[in-house]
Amino acid sequence: VNVSCARTVKLTLEYDGTDYNGWQIQKGRPDRTVQGEIEKALKQIFGKPVPVRGSGRTDAGVHARGQVAHIQPPSDMSAGEIVRALNGNLPRDVSILSARDAASGFHAQYSAVGKTYRYQILNRPSPPAIDRRFVWHYPHRLDLRAMRETSRYLLGRHDFASFCATDPARAGRDTIRRVSALAVRKSGGLVRIDIQANGFLYKMVRNIVGTLVAVGNGRLEPGQVRTILRQKDRKRAAETAPACGLTLLKVDYK
Amino acid sequence: VNVSCARTVKLTLEYDGTDYNGWQIQKGRPDRTVQGEIEKALKQIFGKPVPVRGSGRTDAGVHARGQVAHIQPPSDMSAGEIVRALNGNLPRDVSILSARDAASGFHAQYSAVGKTYRYQILNRPSPPAIDRRFVWHYPHRLDLRAMRETSRYLLGRHDFASFCATDPARAGRDTIRRVSALAVRKSGGLVRIDIQANGFLYKMVRNIVGTLVAVGNGRLEPGQVRTILRQKDRKRAAETAPACGLTLLKVDYK
Repeated sequence: VNVSCARTVKLTLEYDGTDYNGWQIQKGRPDRTVQGEIEKALKQIFGKPVPVRGSGRTDAGVHARGQVAHIQPPSDMSAGEIVRALNGNLPRDVSILSARDAASGFHAQYSAVGKTYRYQILNRPSPPAIDRRFVWHYPHRLDLRAMRETSRYLLGRHDFASFCATDPARAGRDTIRRVSALAVRKSGGLVRIDIQANGFLYKMVRNIVGTLVAVGNGRLEPGQVRTILRQKDRKRAAETAPACGLTLLKVDYK
Repeated sequence: VNVSCARTVKLTLEYDGTDYNGWQIQKGRPDRTVQGEIEKALKQIFGKPVPVRGSGRTDAGVHARGQVAHIQPPSDMSAGEIVRALNGNLPRDVSILSARDAASGFHAQYSAVGKTYRYQILNRPSPPAIDRRFVWHYPHRLDLRAMRETSRYLLGRHDFASFCATDPARAGRDTIRRVSALAVRKSGGLVRIDIQANGFLYKMVRNIVGTLVAVGNGRLEPGQVRTILRQKDRKRAAETAPACGLTLLKVDYK
């Protein structure tokens, strides 16, 4: 079998990550993962194991409105039929938005050239009832102007080592990324932080958000973020923001 | 005790109605209700039963971002302390947004002069994963222009008997209401129908939405809604839209 000639189908999907231990199947662990649920559904549909490969893993509790993955279906079932069959076999907290036959050589992870994440903070005294699965409840004051000033220092090409969680499996890898957009908006009590980059380090968005909130709350000055970037030391930046506020919005391909 | 002189506190609250059998305690039934959960929390706080009275009941599965209720607290605990104590004793799907000492004679139901509801329809082929608790998933085509034309016929003062579910307890009551705003907006796949009136009949919003969707789908012509209003017969309008899409946004007081 010439694998490189196999038909590849690109899937775009949405999930509520609350009840998942992240995207990726953990070898030897029975945790519920999004990848695991999709592979279970694929086995139902095709009668044999069909691996699904995502654009990257999302951590436990992180959501997606536009995660991308690919499969090599072992039948000539049309892309539209695959969407309907998958949605008929998936739990309610995962939904396949679309499927398309991809160009030869398409790979959800290696072909990706950028991603956009949204982080939502509910900034009001009362806890969220309706949005509780999708926001970080932060009841203290937030100076949006200072957070926006900080975001300007993070824009562009930097070594983001100070915003990268230690992961032994990835030690020694390049920690330079280019942040092409970073917007902090507020509507009602909801603060939305949208961040786009050519790639993200492990927990990078949640570490950036933690630092933006430390500035918003007055524990850090906006200008200190430049020093933190320069120090290339995870211990310099603020704590990681909780997973529940984070959603992968979009994966870009050439 | 001169009840009319009792201190009255107005509460504004949010709830995810998915796991509730509506706002109102059903006599002799052990169902989980929002009113019941609040009264349980009040008993914890004050050590004795304190009734809570809402602006009106919401049905099983209906949500609120701005329901209003009142209590007569049997202590001089401040309004701010009441908010914090309630939120500390309520389940995660109910949140007290604010409490204010109200003018003498304030009554959450009888002082209300209007309400605004929002109905959300997710109009796309794939089922919702993230918004699944708060939208009606309607995968078929919807002609927004025809729905907006229809909404104009419903604006103003009408007898809404054709849009009122039969409720023996309310038979013979006045069915005339004034709809002061009715907006149909679409953003992405999400259709939002906001409707404001001086009062609503039983299931009136969901019956109006069901009829708007019947027009959007081509089963009814916009002009037929005028005939349906004139017939004053519930059997003439379309089916009731599901509860999960409905949220009480706001209650107006003089």
